[in-house]
Amino acid sequence: MQTTRDGKGFLLLTFEDRSGTMRGVDWWNAELNDERLTQGTVVRVEGKVKLFDTKMQLNIKNSKDAITVLSADEFDPKKFIEITSKDVKAIYEELLKMIDLVRDKYIKMLLEAVFVQDEKFVVRFLDSPAATSVHHAYKGGLIEHTLDVVKLAKSIRDNYPDMDINDDLIIAGALLHDIGKTKEYSLVPSGIERTGSGEMLGHIIMGIQMVDRYAEQIQDFPRALLMEINHIILSHHGEIEWGAPIQPKTIEAMIVHSADNADSKIAQFREITKKTLDDNNTYVQNQWSEYNRYLDRKIKVKGVDASYD
Amino acid sequence: MQTTRDGKGFLLLTFEDRSGTMRGVDWWNAELNDERLTQGTVVRVEGKVKLFDTKMQLNIKNSKDAITVLSADEFDPKKFIEITSKDVKAIYEELLKMIDLVRDKYIKMLLEAVFVQDEKFVVRFLDSPAATSVHHAYKGGLIEHTLDVVKLAKSIRDNYPDMDINDDLIIAGALLHDIGKTKEYSLVPSGIERTGSGEMLGHIIMGIQMVDRYAEQIQDFPRALLMEINHIILSHHGEIEWGAPIQPKTIEAMIVHSADNADSKIAQFREITKKTLDDNNTYVQNQWSEYNRYLDRKIKVKGVDASYD
Amino acid sequence: MQTTRDGKGFLLLTFEDRSGTMRGVDWWNAELNDERLTQGTVVRVEGKVKLFDTKMQLNIKNSKDAITVLSADEFDPKKFIEITSKDVKAIYEELLKMIDLVRDKYIKMLLEAVFVQDEKFVVRFLDSPAATSVHHAYKGGLIEHTLDVVKLAKSIRDNYPDMDINDDLIIAGALLHDIGKTKEYSLVPSGIERTGSGEMLGHIIMGIQMVDRYAEQIQDFPRALLMEINHIILSHHGEIEWGAPIQPKTIEAMIVHSADNADSKIAQFREITKKTLDDNNTYVQNQWSEYNRYLDRKIKVKGVDASYD
Amino acid sequence: MQTTRDGKGFLLLTFEDRSGTMRGVDWWNAELNDERLTQGTVVRVEGKVKLFDTKMQLNIKNSKDAITVLSADEFDPKKFIEITSKDVKAIYEELLKMIDLVRDKYIKMLLEAVFVQDEKFVVRFLDSPAATSVHHAYKGGLIEHTLDVVKLAKSIRDNYPDMDINDDLIIAGALLHDIGKTKEYSLVPSGIERTGSGEMLGHIIMGIQMVDRYAEQIQDFPRALLMEINHIILSHHGEIEWGAPIQPKTIEAMIVHSADNADSKIAQFREITKKTLDDNNTYVQNQWSEYNRYLDRKIKVKGVDASYD
Amino acid sequence: MQTTRDGKGFLLLTFEDRSGTMRGVDWWNAELNDERLTQGTVVRVEGKVKLFDTKMQLNIKNSKDAITVLSADEFDPKKFIEITSKDVKAIYEELLKMIDLVRDKYIKMLLEAVFVQDEKFVVRFLDSPAATSVHHAYKGGLIEHTLDVVKLAKSIRDNYPDMDINDDLIIAGALLHDIGKTKEYSLVPSGIERTGSGEMLGHIIMGIQMVDRYAEQIQDFPRALLMEINHIILSHHGEIEWGAPIQPKTIEAMIVHSADNADSKIAQFREITKKTLDDNNTYVQNQWSEYNRYLDRKIKVKGVDASYD
Amino acid sequence: MQTTRDGKGFLLLTFEDRSGTMRGVDWWNAELNDERLTQGTVVRVEGKVKLFDTKMQLNIKNSKDAITVLSADEFDPKKFIEITSKDVKAIYEELLKMIDLVRDKYIKMLLEAVFVQDEKFVVRFLDSPAATSVHHAYKGGLIEHTLDVVKLAKSIRDNYPDMDINDDLIIAGALLHDIGKTKEYSLVPSGIERTGSGEMLGHIIMGIQMVDRYAEQIQDFPRALLMEINHIILSHHGEIEWGAPIQPKTIEAMIVHSADNADSKIAQFREITKKTLDDNNTYVQNQWSEYNRYLDRKIKVKGVDASYD
Repeated sequence: MQTTRDGKGFLLLTFEDRSGTMRGVDWWNAELNDERLTQGTVVRVEGKVKLFDTKMQLNIKNSKDAITVLSADEFDPKKFIEITSKDVKAIYEELLKMIDLVRDKYIKMLLEAVFVQDEKFVVRFLDSPAATSVHHAYKGGLIEHTLDVVKLAKSIRDNYPDMDINDDLIIAGALLHDIGKTKEYSLVPSGIERTGSGEMLGHIIMGIQMVDRYAEQIQDFPRALLMEINHIILSHHGEIEWGAPIQPKTIEAMIVHSADNADSKIAQFREITKKTLDDNNTYVQNQWSEYNRYLDRKIKVKGVDASYD
Repeated sequence: MQTTRDGKGFLLLTFEDRSGTMRGVDWWNAELNDERLTQGTVVRVEGKVKLFDTKMQLNIKNSKDAITVLSADEFDPKKFIEITSKDVKAIYEELLKMIDLVRDKYIKMLLEAVFVQDEKFVVRFLDSPAATSVHHAYKGGLIEHTLDVVKLAKSIRDNYPDMDINDDLIIAGALLHDIGKTKEYSLVPSGIERTGSGEMLGHIIMGIQMVDRYAEQIQDFPRALLMEINHIILSHHGEIEWGAPIQPKTIEAMIVHSADNADSKIAQFREITKKTLDDNNTYVQNQWSEYNRYLDRKIKVKGVDASYD
Repeated sequence: MQTTRDGKGFLLLTFEDRSGTMRGVDWWNAELNDERLTQGTVVRVEGKVKLFDTKMQLNIKNSKDAITVLSADEFDPKKFIEITSKDVKAIYEELLKMIDLVRDKYIKMLLEAVFVQDEKFVVRFLDSPAATSVHHAYKGGLIEHTLDVVKLAKSIRDNYPDMDINDDLIIAGALLHDIGKTKEYSLVPSGIERTGSGEMLGHIIMGIQMVDRYAEQIQDFPRALLMEINHIILSHHGEIEWGAPIQPKTIEAMIVHSADNADSKIAQFREITKKTLDDNNTYVQNQWSEYNRYLDRKIKVKGVDASYD
Repeated sequence: MQTTRDGKGFLLLTFEDRSGTMRGVDWWNAELNDERLTQGTVVRVEGKVKLFDTKMQLNIKNSKDAITVLSADEFDPKKFIEITSKDVKAIYEELLKMIDLVRDKYIKMLLEAVFVQDEKFVVRFLDSPAATSVHHAYKGGLIEHTLDVVKLAKSIRDNYPDMDINDDLIIAGALLHDIGKTKEYSLVPSGIERTGSGEMLGHIIMGIQMVDRYAEQIQDFPRALLMEINHIILSHHGEIEWGAPIQPKTIEAMIVHSADNADSKIAQFREITKKTLDDNNTYVQNQWSEYNRYLDRKIKVKGVDASYD
Repeated sequence: MQTTRDGKGFLLLTFEDRSGTMRGVDWWNAELNDERLTQGTVVRVEGKVKLFDTKMQLNIKNSKDAITVLSADEFDPKKFIEITSKDVKAIYEELLKMIDLVRDKYIKMLLEAVFVQDEKFVVRFLDSPAATSVHHAYKGGLIEHTLDVVKLAKSIRDNYPDMDINDDLIIAGALLHDIGKTKEYSLVPSGIERTGSGEMLGHIIMGIQMVDRYAEQIQDFPRALLMEINHIILSHHGEIEWGAPIQPKTIEAMIVHSADNADSKIAQFREITKKTLDDNNTYVQNQWSEYNRYLDRKIKVKGVDASYD
Repeated sequence: MQTTRDGKGFLLLTFEDRSGTMRGVDWWNAELNDERLTQGTVVRVEGKVKLFDTKMQLNIKNSKDAITVLSADEFDPKKFIEITSKDVKAIYEELLKMIDLVRDKYIKMLLEAVFVQDEKFVVRFLDSPAATSVHHAYKGGLIEHTLDVVKLAKSIRDNYPDMDINDDLIIAGALLHDIGKTKEYSLVPSGIERTGSGEMLGHIIMGIQMVDRYAEQIQDFPRALLMEINHIILSHHGEIEWGAPIQPKTIEAMIVHSADNADSKIAQFREITKKTLDDNNTYVQNQWSEYNRYLDRKIKVKGVDASYD
């Protein structure tokens, strides 16, 4: 609620959906609407869009019904936030099976404390995106990415049967590597936002803080084990300039980094391909995506082709 | 054979083994030795080491037996060149089985032309190192690395069953990605050297030239297929600044790059670990390798430990 | 041809000229126009531009004459593609004289095979641009750049008469350094596009593949010569991070790189200066161009001036 | 204790001082010496240095007195480790006065918990170096650097009296920014070594883990305060590529980073100048240090001079 | 004044204010307005904005009064150029007091020649901005920044009382470090522009040229002193890649660089914070600024907060 | 002259030649030798080399004749400093002819003031090296490089006859671009050293200071001309990160940079080739140089060859 210089009350609003944000002004039913709207309410609005001070502004119609509050079944949530196409529950089930493979009792206790017993965490984990853009930037993206990294890391490890590699650390490191993201991102109507703590600490640091706290609750949790797991989380970005506070120095950390790195790239290819084919499928037979600035290239979205110019 | 200012003939020699190179001078039996020695001869020498013009020089003893030519069973080839500890033949057999998995007839014909029918190539391929240093820098290293990349690339691919990925291209690209290295390196007594063509063109370019030539021999080999395979070879280093003339733009190229990248790093960890444990096993209980300049770090060579300072 | 949900047929079109691309919809004469239009047809259109789904869309007028197909003399090709201001035939003649200077018979045969006997290549070569942007990004730009590099490389070489430099390699390397660009770019109505093979292999690789194939047709073409020429093509970008698969390691490669580099920069200055003076000549007396992102600077477009602020 | 192939027992030793490390072999009194020596014992040794397997090796004399164990007053500890020239107790007193300036009760409690109540920490903190090289790489260097950063940060802050800056956070952040270094480095006879946990986690991460644990012990310690302090520790290196997991995003973090950065550089100048003047004072009147690779330059070690060539 | 193809005279104008530039055309009173307007005249205009050739163009109304020339009191200069909020005269007085602290007679003479006796310089210095953007990009910004750097450099120096640092050089270097900016920027109605000499030489070079010329006017000005001062000016950006022709090699140069660097960053925080709070204060309770591309981050614009998500 | 703790006088000396520096001590004839030796005296010495405090030290023999002062014809100056193989006088004559080509009277006056009238400068210019290493690092190297750059720049310019390029600025810029090097380097017995002013200002800055001073002596020298010439000097390194305070923004500056860049690279090839062939010509038939760290590659030192491995 604001007041003009000549004393007239009006209401400033901010409307958001996946296409962006627009400022709205209600000159007519400011008090009424101030009361019934809170942040996060989904509405239908009527009014006129004007250019005000170099930005678009919606002047809301002079009608009590200009703003209609919508109930959950009256709007498509996908207008506000993208959601994974996969079955999140099934992914979660598969992820729990990975924990069953762990033989070290302390590592198993730690993973169960996180992924089974901390129900509040599990709810956030199943909803969370893995990024604001680039890849897995949608509701459910985090658990999808996490399971893929666990499976990929295990596959990589299995290619080196003669090497002295700790399987339990591979599973634990891969499962836990991005848990800090449940605190780094929050879902808002206009998409995915970085939280205040995400800005201040980042998901890697919050990840090890979380693990530290879970481990404290487990009696006699070995300090050396905790250090190995924290090292995997800290180093999973691989290089300092890619945001890793520490480079991978154990074989397990190197493998989890390799898996994370490969899945990130493959996911980008998958998502760019899908988007290109979806956009174009009715009238363009294009082999190539648009230029993607994260990959700094176009990618080929179709398989082997019979002809090349 | 040289002649001093006062007309005396003498013989300049260069001795090499894995520890380095030393110049030798034979003032006494120059002609005799000039005749019986050629580049690559393995000898035992007696003489005195002197400092000459800031370098070490071996003044050979005045005796016809000062230089003894050794036969193959009189010296340990490992003094001159490191050799893989694996069974190269077994690796080769396993590699051939990978070719059997290919369904596209043209790709299969191409792979057989290279890895089965070109016997001269196969000999070089089984002997070749994969680098002059860094990783797999030993006789047999190339085929060892190649098979590991094929298997790893297949594993990675298998983690994405829903994606439209060409399995045959994965196998072919991984098998062929480094074949140019058979021409880039040569084994000399003092170790591994880059050849003239290796300096001028590099293994990536020689790799696609080789594939071009093999494909020309196969009637109607589809140009589009050839381009896909060449693209994988060209892009397997991943980024321009890592030496890839082109970045991976197909999902198959991205996967082969991921596999190559992961195997290179894992092999470095394996080789540094082995070397550290071998060097230290009698008297140091060290958890850490020395600083490695390729990885720009020390790596941890022992598993989880009960205590940390 | 598409069909709406209620079964109505309509035609989706894409219009392009140098200013960009616009989607068009013909709701009225879809079938008629579907028949008479193909990709590359130049037309005049009437209709209304609407904002549809965040993009501009041209709704074509309900009239059989809304779309008029234009014949070659009814439109100005420069609306669709920029063309060199030079006489391409004259450049070609001058280029042929360069080949006459070559003394080595194999190099001469190679150059004639490319630039004289392969008529299909010559046609492409005379039409081709040298880039999609930056410099020489216009029809005829490739041959213009090529001749300038040959002449410049020869001038540089002539400044070092005492050095052991192979003049024939300088000429051959400079002439051939960018021939792969005839396959990397294609002219489309909206400007210059990178081809599929250009994306997959790039002009440097396609250049050496072309030279390999021409050389194969010449009996006994010396392998060492081919390697020298290929090395010049591969290294002409100078540094790995500027896109050269190999750095210049021969004096001839270094000189061709220097000439290519200097001509690229000088051409950018020339083209920015021309554009700035053309844009401004009626009402601004400006000494400076706008900021140019490729050069990361403004450039001074006028000569020495009497006053400075 | 080792045994030769022919059953002879011998003792392998490693000798260290500030000049380096040397392997020693005792063929004569292996058992005797094995008993009386442990890691860290300071000794005087007699023997002969031989070149063995490309490394220097000390063959210990055949005498029971070849190795004399020295008591604390028989050797100069500075031969083994460099020590600050400042009075560490006085620095500590001054540092405690900084804590008195803090007004926020929680921040004060936190700082007292660390710097007053945790006596074990205080002991380590007073001994610890601030680096293995570069600057403050000596016993006592950490506390010296810490106090300098606190004072400098306060000075910088005082230059901006009109800005909304939290003085308590400046003091706390500067005091705590490097406390992780007490766990990152350990003093060994041959100098300063990075610990296992230092390799695995690094001082920045261990710093916030320590702060997390201290804060947990303080009832109702505000989470927002903890985040501000942790953010300062995490970001004090300033940029990702300089090893900061997060860039400074609060004005307090920016100021602590500026102070840390300035003190590091000034300390390098001070230490290089001292070393240069010490080394040269008897016979060279040099104005310039040797090339320093950390600063990538020579520095001028004398003040304004009357003449320049 | 231009003439259309059919001979009609018209006037092309360029209008500028802080929001940008727009082309205008006067078809009606071209001659009249051509006479009474010169570059820099502030006017009020009436007309219609049209899209012409992809740019906005103002077609001026057909009325002799369409363009009204405004006198100084009829418009707000802040619409055209931002001005410091501080009292420039007071800053100047404080700056003169800094000169009084200098003890070396030559340095004092130099500083007085610049900041007291050269009145023309002083006028420019008090008006000049310190940048076109980033920080202190407003009229008066240069002197504000200069005084802050002098005071900050003195504070830093005072933290190292035991070091051999020349106080006079600190003051002189800090006062003079950016004087070249009086020639690098000029104030135009649309904001701050780089001058021709600014483009050709830059403020660092012009700074030392100015100092050279002032020093020449002082009899017997010591060459060594001049070199120390010039070195501080040349090196104040700190690193070659940040635009310093030379890295700081004297302790005084290092301190002035540290002060300049810290003040630049702190000023950015201050200006971003102010702008964010000003923009948002009526209706958004935001803790974070927008993404800032110079700092490559968002910054936190509010102090410690009780809650974090 | 030093005195030992027990009062004995001794003389510390530093011996230098191209191979390095060694400390010498004369215990026997300290006073005698202190008198007759000054810095720069060339001597023959007898004595014993001992290891003292980790460095080599020459203990001079107890004999009055242990140190013999050599006259100019008794030693080979090349033992102390490398000298160009070219005729410096002839280069100078050719350079003067370049000045004759200049048509602008002010530019001509400036060049004559520098290269003809300032005899002291000419002497330094003919002796000066162009670097301490990398290329032209020998007495006479500067003038050799300068003439080559002038000629090369003219050649490049002549390839663009249609462009508006100022020939006089090309000649002046190329002639003057490195004159600051006469003050940056000095010849000492052990080779080439950077002077104090070279460290503090660098040759680029000293170059424009010199030009500023010469221009001041010429009545009415146009400021705009001076700025163009200074811009060429300032920008001749081409990019900020290569040490240019300003990037080239005029076509003349771009051409001088291109010429300087090309000549530097070609000179490196020439010098590496010569050195490789000289070192190896008696007993190695090598096609490749050793790895060169400035070019980061080996270079091919022989022409086209018939065979490649």
